[in-house]
Amino acid sequence: MDEKKETTRVEAFSDGVFAIAITLLVLELKPAIDHVLESHPEIGLFGAMWEQWPIFLAFVISFATLGIMWLNHHRLFNLIIRIDHTLLVLNLFVLFAATVVPFPTALLGEYSKDPISFRDATLLYGGAFVLVAIAYNALWRYATYRHRLLEQHVDVQMVKRINRQYLLGPLLYVIAFAFAWLSPALSLGIEALLAAFYLLPGIELKRPGAKQKSAQEVA
Amino acid sequence: MDEKKETTRVEAFSDGVFAIAITLLVLELKPAIDHVLESHPEIGLFGAMWEQWPIFLAFVISFATLGIMWLNHHRLFNLIIRIDHTLLVLNLFVLFAATVVPFPTALLGEYSKDPISFRDATLLYGGAFVLVAIAYNALWRYATYRHRLLEQHVDVQMVKRINRQYLLGPLLYVIAFAFAWLSPALSLGIEALLAAFYLLPGIELKRPGAKQKSAQEVA
Amino acid sequence: MDEKKETTRVEAFSDGVFAIAITLLVLELKPAIDHVLESHPEIGLFGAMWEQWPIFLAFVISFATLGIMWLNHHRLFNLIIRIDHTLLVLNLFVLFAATVVPFPTALLGEYSKDPISFRDATLLYGGAFVLVAIAYNALWRYATYRHRLLEQHVDVQMVKRINRQYLLGPLLYVIAFAFAWLSPALSLGIEALLAAFYLLPGIELKRPGAKQKSAQEVA
Amino acid sequence: MDEKKETTRVEAFSDGVFAIAITLLVLELKPAIDHVLESHPEIGLFGAMWEQWPIFLAFVISFATLGIMWLNHHRLFNLIIRIDHTLLVLNLFVLFAATVVPFPTALLGEYSKDPISFRDATLLYGGAFVLVAIAYNALWRYATYRHRLLEQHVDVQMVKRINRQYLLGPLLYVIAFAFAWLSPALSLGIEALLAAFYLLPGIELKRPGAKQKSAQEVA
Repeated sequence: MDEKKETTRVEAFSDGVFAIAITLLVLELKPAIDHVLESHPEIGLFGAMWEQWPIFLAFVISFATLGIMWLNHHRLFNLIIRIDHTLLVLNLFVLFAATVVPFPTALLGEYSKDPISFRDATLLYGGAFVLVAIAYNALWRYATYRHRLLEQHVDVQMVKRINRQYLLGPLLYVIAFAFAWLSPALSLGIEALLAAFYLLPGIELKRPGAKQKSAQEVA
Repeated sequence: MDEKKETTRVEAFSDGVFAIAITLLVLELKPAIDHVLESHPEIGLFGAMWEQWPIFLAFVISFATLGIMWLNHHRLFNLIIRIDHTLLVLNLFVLFAATVVPFPTALLGEYSKDPISFRDATLLYGGAFVLVAIAYNALWRYATYRHRLLEQHVDVQMVKRINRQYLLGPLLYVIAFAFAWLSPALSLGIEALLAAFYLLPGIELKRPGAKQKSAQEVA
Repeated sequence: MDEKKETTRVEAFSDGVFAIAITLLVLELKPAIDHVLESHPEIGLFGAMWEQWPIFLAFVISFATLGIMWLNHHRLFNLIIRIDHTLLVLNLFVLFAATVVPFPTALLGEYSKDPISFRDATLLYGGAFVLVAIAYNALWRYATYRHRLLEQHVDVQMVKRINRQYLLGPLLYVIAFAFAWLSPALSLGIEALLAAFYLLPGIELKRPGAKQKSAQEVA
Repeated sequence: MDEKKETTRVEAFSDGVFAIAITLLVLELKPAIDHVLESHPEIGLFGAMWEQWPIFLAFVISFATLGIMWLNHHRLFNLIIRIDHTLLVLNLFVLFAATVVPFPTALLGEYSKDPISFRDATLLYGGAFVLVAIAYNALWRYATYRHRLLEQHVDVQMVKRINRQYLLGPLLYVIAFAFAWLSPALSLGIEALLAAFYLLPGIELKRPGAKQKSAQEVA
């Protein structure tokens, strides 16, 4: 019984930060529209939205990625049941990475017109996701090292599976980041694919031997 | 006992998103006033508010509609007690629709002066509500399909009743959306009526045989 | 045991709305400073803050008043343990009043220079507090009518005491509101006094026979 | 059993305020970039970020400091289990200090170019941290006076240790504040060091005899 609950307030605080970061994204849409309509009022609202496609794409990608971050946080803190000072600090690092995301998202709304600043904004955007992936790895590696903060009867196979997934994440995001030099649009496309891939229910079904317990596992 | 609680953190995160989306709406009011007073300082604060009636109407409608969304979320998650990856993703879709609402609300504050952009803003506004209605239906249909994520002893009559209500919602919002082509003011009027209708305690009393248990049901 | 808990999620959602409304207030301070420094850069940061005293006073009053609203909500929902549709809608009305507060607070930052708009902004500010007081009364009267949503063994004396306090609140705020016609500064002063009065621990001690149980009561 | 839980809702509300204040910080980054690029578009996004280093440094320091504030709040409310009106008001004072932090953080983004306003902004920034330190001391001294609101079997050694730490905090922040007169950059540097110091896991290990129970203690 004492086993549970140490993490309750960390989860509540983290939920709050994710919820706010994910909701603040919408605040960047209107200024991007205003920006276009001030100089070209004749193209109209839908024309302005079409012109500013990168901010809308970034809005959807950022929402999905922050949503996935929350799903992951949720999943990890189902396994992590003890906390210590280092874990709390690493969790702050994860939240820091999450709150940074709206900044490059907003930049994509205003600085996507000329190639140089579009590339720079996409680099910052990709960099934020790399930071997120590093922060999650640090948190997870620390918590699972010798199972120090995990539930006693934790499923060892699942810990290993998450370990493997967490090796892949930073690598994929570094690739997306690097592509920003070649083509910002391609970099955004890769990030959109990654978000879609993580959201697809498919990836869960493919896990070997995970079928029977998938409900609790995700919970 | 194991039956309960899987959804706690989903509800907390969702509460956070709804709370923020509903509170951000107010941020759009002052810029709309500034916008008028910069060019016509002589009309005064109340004159500017009167001029900008669509943003105030939209503020009230959006607040009421997001409030109703939260009530509905609350009601559904009284019946849904298990989660899986798909449900979490569909819940993110619901939250996405909710966070979109402040964007067309803000547009109504600045682009309601000429008929074309007023119509466009109203279309976007109505479109956001249609998206909300679709997202709720997807969540609810998935959760109730063969009762897969519902409480074991769930009231089958209530599930059927919600099923029927949830067929009607998207239809009514599509109608409001379509009216934006004819008359933006009429479209906003229908959306205001829908919000008022869902908030009225009356609709609960009309449900056949629901009187004795209405308190828990809504809880 | 079944007596408790129906209100948990309403409280969580309300906590979120109060927390956001109270934190958004700070966003209005910098624009008020920018506004002055753009036209008079020579007066410096502290000069600009001194010039804009109404927004800083309004910031403190609004923070205190929203804080008191939260304390009151907390206190009421210690006694209210059941919910129904009407209570949820009345609670949305309370939250609506709370989220409105940042709007006139922001207006006081920009429109306090000429007497007419200062008066108008103060009227709106006072009006928001009257709305808050009305909303709380509606919620409380509904919940306590024939004790319909209260705990079974609720302290009848306390209910009566709150009833009396809740008669006084709207009256005092209507007076503060009315004074805005005579003197906006005086109106703000009364609102500051009311906030200070409600925050003072003194008012608790003065309650007859409430000494022994004050800790739980407020909890 | 009755010993626990009085503080649950205070913690939830406080978590919300900390989460929002810490997430709002990011909103100040883009305007600081826009500010530079409007007058010097040729320096590019990274050039503008380099130019505006004080806002990025302040963003990181403010995030870390608000994160530490949350950790402290968490730690104190592990020991505080009863509440009364005065504690709730002192907690509002702590939250007030926390919500003030984004304001001088934002000022550092726009007013760091000329020496006078950079100094003034740094003074306000340091002043906010002094306010935070005073608020925490008031809360903690009140709660621990004769152990009035603490858990019955609280570790007296830990209370004393926190007492000592809480004497030091305000002193260090007053020093950082005072240095703003000599050198704003140095003042920011000290505040960065303080944040780093409090985040380092080291300070926990150094506590005499605290090793065995550090996990629960921080929890």
